[in-house]
Amino acid sequence: MSRLIKKTSQKAGLPPGTLVHIGERKAGKVRITIIDYDEFNLEETEASTIEECFPYKDKPTTTWINIDGIHKTEVIERIGQQFNLHPLLQEDIVNTGQRPKMEDFGDCLFLVLKMLSYADENHKIEAEQVSLILGPNFVISFQEREGDIFDTIRERIRKGKGRIRKTGADYLAYMLIDAIVDNYFIVLETLGEEIEDIEAELASNPTTKMLHKIRTLKNEMLFLRKSLWPLREVVSGLQRGESSLIQQSTQVYLRDVYDHTIQIIDTVETFRDMLSGMLDIYLSSVSNKMNEVMKVLTIFASIFIPLTFVVGIYGMNFEFMPELKWHWGYPVVLIVMATIATTLAIYFKRKKWL
Amino acid sequence: MSRLIKKTSQKAGLPPGTLVHIGERKAGKVRITIIDYDEFNLEETEASTIEECFPYKDKPTTTWINIDGIHKTEVIERIGQQFNLHPLLQEDIVNTGQRPKMEDFGDCLFLVLKMLSYADENHKIEAEQVSLILGPNFVISFQEREGDIFDTIRERIRKGKGRIRKTGADYLAYMLIDAIVDNYFIVLETLGEEIEDIEAELASNPTTKMLHKIRTLKNEMLFLRKSLWPLREVVSGLQRGESSLIQQSTQVYLRDVYDHTIQIIDTVETFRDMLSGMLDIYLSSVSNKMNEVMKVLTIFASIFIPLTFVVGIYGMNFEFMPELKWHWGYPVVLIVMATIATTLAIYFKRKKWL
Amino acid sequence: MSRLIKKTSQKAGLPPGTLVHIGERKAGKVRITIIDYDEFNLEETEASTIEECFPYKDKPTTTWINIDGIHKTEVIERIGQQFNLHPLLQEDIVNTGQRPKMEDFGDCLFLVLKMLSYADENHKIEAEQVSLILGPNFVISFQEREGDIFDTIRERIRKGKGRIRKTGADYLAYMLIDAIVDNYFIVLETLGEEIEDIEAELASNPTTKMLHKIRTLKNEMLFLRKSLWPLREVVSGLQRGESSLIQQSTQVYLRDVYDHTIQIIDTVETFRDMLSGMLDIYLSSVSNKMNEVMKVLTIFASIFIPLTFVVGIYGMNFEFMPELKWHWGYPVVLIVMATIATTLAIYFKRKKWL
Amino acid sequence: MSRLIKKTSQKAGLPPGTLVHIGERKAGKVRITIIDYDEFNLEETEASTIEECFPYKDKPTTTWINIDGIHKTEVIERIGQQFNLHPLLQEDIVNTGQRPKMEDFGDCLFLVLKMLSYADENHKIEAEQVSLILGPNFVISFQEREGDIFDTIRERIRKGKGRIRKTGADYLAYMLIDAIVDNYFIVLETLGEEIEDIEAELASNPTTKMLHKIRTLKNEMLFLRKSLWPLREVVSGLQRGESSLIQQSTQVYLRDVYDHTIQIIDTVETFRDMLSGMLDIYLSSVSNKMNEVMKVLTIFASIFIPLTFVVGIYGMNFEFMPELKWHWGYPVVLIVMATIATTLAIYFKRKKWL
Amino acid sequence: MSRLIKKTSQKAGLPPGTLVHIGERKAGKVRITIIDYDEFNLEETEASTIEECFPYKDKPTTTWINIDGIHKTEVIERIGQQFNLHPLLQEDIVNTGQRPKMEDFGDCLFLVLKMLSYADENHKIEAEQVSLILGPNFVISFQEREGDIFDTIRERIRKGKGRIRKTGADYLAYMLIDAIVDNYFIVLETLGEEIEDIEAELASNPTTKMLHKIRTLKNEMLFLRKSLWPLREVVSGLQRGESSLIQQSTQVYLRDVYDHTIQIIDTVETFRDMLSGMLDIYLSSVSNKMNEVMKVLTIFASIFIPLTFVVGIYGMNFEFMPELKWHWGYPVVLIVMATIATTLAIYFKRKKWL
Repeated sequence: MSRLIKKTSQKAGLPPGTLVHIGERKAGKVRITIIDYDEFNLEETEASTIEECFPYKDKPTTTWINIDGIHKTEVIERIGQQFNLHPLLQEDIVNTGQRPKMEDFGDCLFLVLKMLSYADENHKIEAEQVSLILGPNFVISFQEREGDIFDTIRERIRKGKGRIRKTGADYLAYMLIDAIVDNYFIVLETLGEEIEDIEAELASNPTTKMLHKIRTLKNEMLFLRKSLWPLREVVSGLQRGESSLIQQSTQVYLRDVYDHTIQIIDTVETFRDMLSGMLDIYLSSVSNKMNEVMKVLTIFASIFIPLTFVVGIYGMNFEFMPELKWHWGYPVVLIVMATIATTLAIYFKRKKWL
Repeated sequence: MSRLIKKTSQKAGLPPGTLVHIGERKAGKVRITIIDYDEFNLEETEASTIEECFPYKDKPTTTWINIDGIHKTEVIERIGQQFNLHPLLQEDIVNTGQRPKMEDFGDCLFLVLKMLSYADENHKIEAEQVSLILGPNFVISFQEREGDIFDTIRERIRKGKGRIRKTGADYLAYMLIDAIVDNYFIVLETLGEEIEDIEAELASNPTTKMLHKIRTLKNEMLFLRKSLWPLREVVSGLQRGESSLIQQSTQVYLRDVYDHTIQIIDTVETFRDMLSGMLDIYLSSVSNKMNEVMKVLTIFASIFIPLTFVVGIYGMNFEFMPELKWHWGYPVVLIVMATIATTLAIYFKRKKWL
Repeated sequence: MSRLIKKTSQKAGLPPGTLVHIGERKAGKVRITIIDYDEFNLEETEASTIEECFPYKDKPTTTWINIDGIHKTEVIERIGQQFNLHPLLQEDIVNTGQRPKMEDFGDCLFLVLKMLSYADENHKIEAEQVSLILGPNFVISFQEREGDIFDTIRERIRKGKGRIRKTGADYLAYMLIDAIVDNYFIVLETLGEEIEDIEAELASNPTTKMLHKIRTLKNEMLFLRKSLWPLREVVSGLQRGESSLIQQSTQVYLRDVYDHTIQIIDTVETFRDMLSGMLDIYLSSVSNKMNEVMKVLTIFASIFIPLTFVVGIYGMNFEFMPELKWHWGYPVVLIVMATIATTLAIYFKRKKWL
Repeated sequence: MSRLIKKTSQKAGLPPGTLVHIGERKAGKVRITIIDYDEFNLEETEASTIEECFPYKDKPTTTWINIDGIHKTEVIERIGQQFNLHPLLQEDIVNTGQRPKMEDFGDCLFLVLKMLSYADENHKIEAEQVSLILGPNFVISFQEREGDIFDTIRERIRKGKGRIRKTGADYLAYMLIDAIVDNYFIVLETLGEEIEDIEAELASNPTTKMLHKIRTLKNEMLFLRKSLWPLREVVSGLQRGESSLIQQSTQVYLRDVYDHTIQIIDTVETFRDMLSGMLDIYLSSVSNKMNEVMKVLTIFASIFIPLTFVVGIYGMNFEFMPELKWHWGYPVVLIVMATIATTLAIYFKRKKWL
Repeated sequence: MSRLIKKTSQKAGLPPGTLVHIGERKAGKVRITIIDYDEFNLEETEASTIEECFPYKDKPTTTWINIDGIHKTEVIERIGQQFNLHPLLQEDIVNTGQRPKMEDFGDCLFLVLKMLSYADENHKIEAEQVSLILGPNFVISFQEREGDIFDTIRERIRKGKGRIRKTGADYLAYMLIDAIVDNYFIVLETLGEEIEDIEAELASNPTTKMLHKIRTLKNEMLFLRKSLWPLREVVSGLQRGESSLIQQSTQVYLRDVYDHTIQIIDTVETFRDMLSGMLDIYLSSVSNKMNEVMKVLTIFASIFIPLTFVVGIYGMNFEFMPELKWHWGYPVVLIVMATIATTLAIYFKRKKWL
């Protein structure tokens, strides 16, 4: 449940802009890394105090400040004061119950995104909130814990591969968003494989466990959609170039991210439809099984009940029952009963029950 | 039912603007409290007559008049005359069957909102109508009964915490709306916990009581949606800044409330989907149980029916039944029957019915 | 069926503007009443011929001509010629198979509305078509039969209560529309009570009659929606003030009517969802009942079948059955059978079937 | 199936504008009738060759050329050349797999419509494609076979009834469209009666035949919708007066047609909902029947199984069974069994199974 | 599954514009064919190296470069450099997991389409990605493997049939798109036939295999929709003439393609609805069958159980049972039992179970 609704009730009654960390505490300590670069130079630092970031604010080079761990509200507050961030923006960073969203504060663009990962042990998608602040020449990213999906971007910056070092902060922000969106594909592929497995198993052996798996996956789809549809709006807004902080050359790249988002949503919808179809198959298999059980019962009962009646007749103790005295009485009755049984068997055969 | 449709039929035929209190009478007497403040001064009064409010109308300071109890239509009428409120507006205040809505009367903004609370004893959400009138320098709030969710706001005004004392009546209105919307989270969390409980119980023991709980919760979701969608429109209208009574600096805060509203709607939709999924699980459990019952019956009947037939044969009273005279007849028949039973048991084992 | 589709096929092939009365004939004779008023004077007449209305057309006072009974097409035709109404408009008045609609003919506004009533005897909503023509200083209303929902308006005009005598024909039209819309609430309340009754009964005793009631109510909802959604469009168009015949001061009142319409639609949608929920409950009750029947059968059969087998064994007539000669044979067998029965009973108890 | 998808695959690979007749050939020979009229004169001809139509093209009078039979592509081609029709337009005339559509080619307006008829023998709606070309002073209509729904229009033109002879080609086109749309009502009424019949029958006696009828009707609704929604767009486009070929005075009439179209769609949607409701009723009746069967079985089995056990006990052959020697043993056992049976009967009575 | 989601995870982390072939490798070697033509001349070449295409770029004649096989990324890269294609465009060509889309790069228009084919052996639709680049006087098409649906176009160019040789590259692009869309009809017809077959079979003999076929077809519909809806957007965008690369005379043709696309979507939706209807029929047949099984069981059991009880009575060994001594006891009992059986048979007959 905690995935679906965060305990935000503790905030009810507090004035707006009060920083309260909502969500699980995932990181031990706050880790701050700074990468500052232009086409020719590159400087990489791990800051021990938040104050070390401040000088980068007004440097013309592109600066990427990454902060892992958002539970220390005083850190966010200091950055907020220095980089002139709106109190509500600060509040949103530490409240992990946000939907993906984009807000334009004029001098900076604030993005909330969800980074997904699939936990194999409990078959659940886990979401981590990533907040990005895009300023004229800096990007500040906030993660709930240390992750590795931004590592390849760091590597690319170091090596100066691609357009990366020549372009500004908006391209850096694009790369971060792209990395997060690409990660959705990995989660989807895992889910796709699980669906495939269930489909194969369902045909051969429908069990209640199957049903629970289908339902769990359906819930995961609900969860995915909850973050996908707003994500789509965010990326759509970005690629339409509504903010002046994003250069036109970067918009083509954001359009690409938008395409990916649509593709992801498409796939999720298809998965949902497939899972619904599987539920139908499951229910129909169950009712087929019942049908088979019923047939067996009917055949057994219907064949033996008349026979038992016949033997019952000759078990009666009337004094005057001529058949009982006949010498061939017993075999004749046996033959009669065999005839009845055969007739019924043929009848059921015709009805395709045997 | 009274939650879904109020007895408004009593009003049919009356001219528009006739004040008729529609809904349950929830408060004993009408209580009027006045808070008047600017950055430096604060005055708090509990008015014994409605006339005490009138002088505040034209004072430049921000005035918040809160009225608990709306069943005395003459009180509303007096305020209406003094503050120049449209008769239809007055009518809406006392008719608690309204949907949340915003109406712009030029010199004042009229808002109808629903304050929710969850009654544990009957597992029902209860809604109280809160009407807000935002004028240039005053806010008048009408509640059906005394509540405590505005207390923290009073406290904040007294302490002068945050931006509150420096800003005008629109920020005060924002805070009231925010308090009401925040309250929805508390209701949602309680519902979320109930859903979680049912989910856990459903897996282990599906009963008819379960079904009724699921359905009650589904009805609650219907009820929630009924007030949520119009609420969304209200807040959306406010944050788009369509009224000149709302300053631009307050719009950022209203955007935050809008975000919360969307989040609430999202959660309600997810809950609805989950409850539908649970219904499927329930129905499937019921049919599984039936299946199990059928299997037991089939196994019992199918094993014993042929055996009973066999013993019936040797219960027949034919004079010439050679088997009856054989010395080993009885044990042989017992062995034959054991063989039949074993064969059938193996057959059912293979079919996975045992 | 006649409620859902009127026999309009008789009109196929006729030129447009041909007046053919479509629908049931509900009134005996056509009754024409005229009310003419301004702030100071009031004149009320019952006209015996349609020609008596004509002088009122060009009087500056507000005139309300009400016509009960639309089956005499020549009456409509005469009015049409006099008041310069488009042939298609005339055609629509006498064709009761219309959807609610608004048409702006420049010099007059034509409205088709549906007045509902709930017939208790057959649990069906009945709809009567009401057409309104709003001219610069007159309103002509056409009803299928004499009704009483406009009586309160007549009374208010007579007494000069409210704004009514000071305002023009548009306010009169508003009052007529308001009276019709208010009437929907009465129908909804009756339906609401029926739904409540069914809900209470469904829990205790689900019968096929229940199902038919649910379905009848669902059909009524279909019927309601069919006239509600176009009604909403009509009122929405009116309150947006698209026609110059409606003064701005009246628009506030029409907005109020619009609010009511939305509220009615909301309630109908909620009723629909509740009825769907009830259907689920009904179906699940039926399957629960089946389950219970199955359990009883299974318990009876499963306990007695083995016992019957046992007594069958000792009913066999083998000569050499040592048990039969034992002195304690009979009581021992009885004890054995009691043990079997108890064991099975405990087994079913554990499975929660008893 | 051929109603749902026409064999258009034969056209794949051909250059656009190639005339290939797609669909069943319905008429024997092509029949061309010409009606040319203005307010004072009327000329009616049946042309033996297509060339006879050509002189009418540039006459100032209104000309209606009606062509029954579209399988001769050379006829279409000749007209196309003479009247300067786009190759794609010609192609669409002979391809009966079109959806209703309107295309504006500047100097002429091209309309594709579907004329429906209901074949009683196989309970299927049949659709015939009607193409209309509206030029400045001519209308060319193409029908798949000779029909009679345009006869009343011919009659009206001949008699000069209504506005018809004074107005131009656009009014003629309106009349043709109106005739086609009016025809939908006739089909709907027939369907409505069938639905009514099924509804009445369903309550008394639900059979599999019923189910097939419901499903056939549902498929017919699908088929209807397929041509209705695009029809709505066509008529909506026409009445919005987007083409200069349609005079403003005709638009009022087209608005009337639009109203009819909406009404038809409304009715179809209501029918669909009713048919879905009937399916629920059917399924529930089937399960009720099953329930009843189960009850009968359970009652029989549950009452007789214990009795059979009792008589089995006294059929055992133990030597020492004191009851067998008692003089009142037999009647006592009979009384015991009667008591058991009565108790069970009362128990089932209480459970409302009897 | 691979049809629904391609293994794009391997690309996560790579910089944008990196060419990685995603999808199955379908062609052995890359084959490049060039057709260059104007109204008077035609040149057809099969290029052995990609460099042979380059001179055609700036020729005023229309050039069509077709490339079969996209797994060699270096080929795409070379063309990209020469024809000045955006790196993201190149990336999209080799990534076969794209949705159909149109992107306007100013100097060229980039289209991604899906060419469908229906594999009879596994009843699955297979999709091949076709990318088109439309420049001012050239079209470059990329196919995953050699296909034959473009052959008729080649033939038409060679023969100079139709408008083809007089018009420019945009008309060529239209023809390619048209060929692809026309191919959908062939797939739809095959699916339509399969649906028809199932429908016929379903009525006579519903089996689980049927159910699996229905479901497979439903999944195919899902798959079709996934590529159809974006296709619609693409063609809609083209026909609206948003790009300057498309002449107005070609737009009429594209409107025709758009009509076809809508028709295809319509048919797919109808198929979906029909398949859903079939599922209902299937489930209802299964439950009917169960019902029939139950009836047989009930009749057998209910008739014989009382009879067996009767014979059981006279099998009891009481010493004092007067009936046993009566001479006519046995025949009387037989008659009594015949009466019971007949009564029950009549009862079941009346209930329509026999």
